[in-house]
Amino acid sequence: MRNWILPENIADLLPPEARRVETLRRASLDLIAGFGYELVQPPLIEYVDSLLTRDDAALDLKTFKLTDQLSGRQLGLRADITPQVARIDAHLLNRQGVARLCYAGPVVHTLPDGIMAAREPLQLGAEIYGYAGVAADVEIVELMGECLKLAGIAHVHLDIGHIGLFLALADAAGLQGGAREAVFRTIQQKDAATLAALLADVPADLKAGLLALPNLYGDLQVLEQAERSLPALPGVQSALRELRELSVALAARDITPNFDLAELRSGYYHTGLVFAAYAEGWPNAVARGGRYDHVGEQFGRPRPATGFSLDLKELAWRLPPAAARAAILAPSTFDLQLADAIRQLRAAGETVVVRLGEVVDPEELHANRELVLVDGQWQVRAL
Amino acid sequence: MRNWILPENIADLLPPEARRVETLRRASLDLIAGFGYELVQPPLIEYVDSLLTRDDAALDLKTFKLTDQLSGRQLGLRADITPQVARIDAHLLNRQGVARLCYAGPVVHTLPDGIMAAREPLQLGAEIYGYAGVAADVEIVELMGECLKLAGIAHVHLDIGHIGLFLALADAAGLQGGAREAVFRTIQQKDAATLAALLADVPADLKAGLLALPNLYGDLQVLEQAERSLPALPGVQSALRELRELSVALAARDITPNFDLAELRSGYYHTGLVFAAYAEGWPNAVARGGRYDHVGEQFGRPRPATGFSLDLKELAWRLPPAAARAAILAPSTFDLQLADAIRQLRAAGETVVVRLGEVVDPEELHANRELVLVDGQWQVRAL
Repeated sequence: MRNWILPENIADLLPPEARRVETLRRASLDLIAGFGYELVQPPLIEYVDSLLTRDDAALDLKTFKLTDQLSGRQLGLRADITPQVARIDAHLLNRQGVARLCYAGPVVHTLPDGIMAAREPLQLGAEIYGYAGVAADVEIVELMGECLKLAGIAHVHLDIGHIGLFLALADAAGLQGGAREAVFRTIQQKDAATLAALLADVPADLKAGLLALPNLYGDLQVLEQAERSLPALPGVQSALRELRELSVALAARDITPNFDLAELRSGYYHTGLVFAAYAEGWPNAVARGGRYDHVGEQFGRPRPATGFSLDLKELAWRLPPAAARAAILAPSTFDLQLADAIRQLRAAGETVVVRLGEVVDPEELHANRELVLVDGQWQVRAL
Repeated sequence: MRNWILPENIADLLPPEARRVETLRRASLDLIAGFGYELVQPPLIEYVDSLLTRDDAALDLKTFKLTDQLSGRQLGLRADITPQVARIDAHLLNRQGVARLCYAGPVVHTLPDGIMAAREPLQLGAEIYGYAGVAADVEIVELMGECLKLAGIAHVHLDIGHIGLFLALADAAGLQGGAREAVFRTIQQKDAATLAALLADVPADLKAGLLALPNLYGDLQVLEQAERSLPALPGVQSALRELRELSVALAARDITPNFDLAELRSGYYHTGLVFAAYAEGWPNAVARGGRYDHVGEQFGRPRPATGFSLDLKELAWRLPPAAARAAILAPSTFDLQLADAIRQLRAAGETVVVRLGEVVDPEELHANRELVLVDGQWQVRAL
């Protein structure tokens, strides 16, 4: 019944699920606030040009388009929130120093990421603007881990990559447009035969470098291997240096990441370090993030930026069901003394449900007690 | 700057506003939970047929339409949440007894209700399904008043009307389609001359009744006046009986409403008692609600229903600005003892901001203290 009445990959949150999502949402925002992140809430719709950063055909395809009857211009229903937060940092806040911002809100995708993926995630994220050093990425990775703990995921496998490697190699090889896209996609798919064919005309050292990327997966040794097998371009060297810095900083915090130098998945707007958190029993990443240093550029203020995001609905789904708060039934007759008793119980944190008509099943109301008049006093007693 | 970059009547919530809205949202949902209402969260988009109840051209015009790439069917971006909650009550919960449901989420309007109106309200509402008696409406009016108190509105002027009066008169007069719509609109505009012209062919007693509606405005005497001036149709009599019952129940609670028998404004799906809360200094109603007893019909389970809704963003806007929580600055050097100190402070509810680069202006970070190493111990001291 639930399937045919709603579009595919769209769902209602009914009381027990909605409560779990709300609880996780509040706890996550409070945790993030304790790190000094300030809440912003950009709108669901805005001009499509603002929603899409450059070079993001994938995000474009995911974004529902609407026509604004007031301006005649094209609007988008946001498929992501990060570009909006970058706009806020660039345009509205105009902070001199570092800005830490966070958000929690729905996004909508035209098509799901997979058969089981929701088209309406509840995206929660935290972002740091204005600091280029790896210390910002470390803080984001730590904060992501703390948020996942709230969602009951204590042990996270962290994958780290760096888009800068692909960008440096592709630039040096002169790859552009469709050819560049095809190579990008093929590296992610780790399809060596197709990749070799696509790179037929690329100089040998760059071809070898691009062919090596899909195999550069594993522990810290991967960085040494990359040093040997990738050409010594400035972009490659700075990317490897950042990966090393991050891994040293994480090691001090007892975090041992995997390296996956073909990890380009996030794609949309990432420019440097990228990371994804995996957990046992979860087929897809439970959170992802990374650098998107150029993202404010289209808004006239390119600042360094890094952040992470996750889907609260997906994470809450697996939390153990929280029991509904047990309620107290009250008669619906109006009486000042009763009204007072009800007000006091509610002020003390109790749920008091007024009886309307016959109560067929107190279980439906989660009621285990009732208010009764005993010797002229309203008292709570077990049902 | 803010104006040109976002569509008209669309706004970002920046940190101080977003914090106020979030605080009011949580407090309101907690208050409503104390009355036994269970949280649901329907999706932003669904098939447009489900979003629109019958006879609601106005809601249709307000709803952005989208094409579902998966099914080819037309989707709507919700402009209201009540029809969705009615669908959930009818289809998914299937409770035998009364169901109390609440929600808080964004809705989007193609066109604003007025020059200053937002096109993206954050709608909060509470609804009772399965009880036809006036006691349900009384609870909704009380709960609405409590929510408005949270938003700093202690004194509310309550206007009460009843759509049943218009429906009974229009049915008896055989008004249908465009003619019915025109009469409906003209009554709301209280335009007597146009109304008389529109009713030229209507039998005298019904014409007199419809012409009387716009003048039936004021205190309890209005009900006696209506008794005398409206024809004694069954629908008219039951509507007046319900208005009397509600006013008696409200009087016991020290609430003295105004009666406005031309109050048909909500319109979309309301069928019976309607009410609107006004407050000094607010040009428009700060909350509205009423009966929409047929609303579950299209989902196969028509149940009595009543509820209210309000816009959290609009209400939060006028709340006094809450000061940001004062933060503690911490150095970014990694040290296990420092990490412990930071963790403990955050667990105790403090905001600890790690220094990234030079702090140009501690005010930007809302910092008034810092963590410093004194005699080998990390201590908090004033900045």
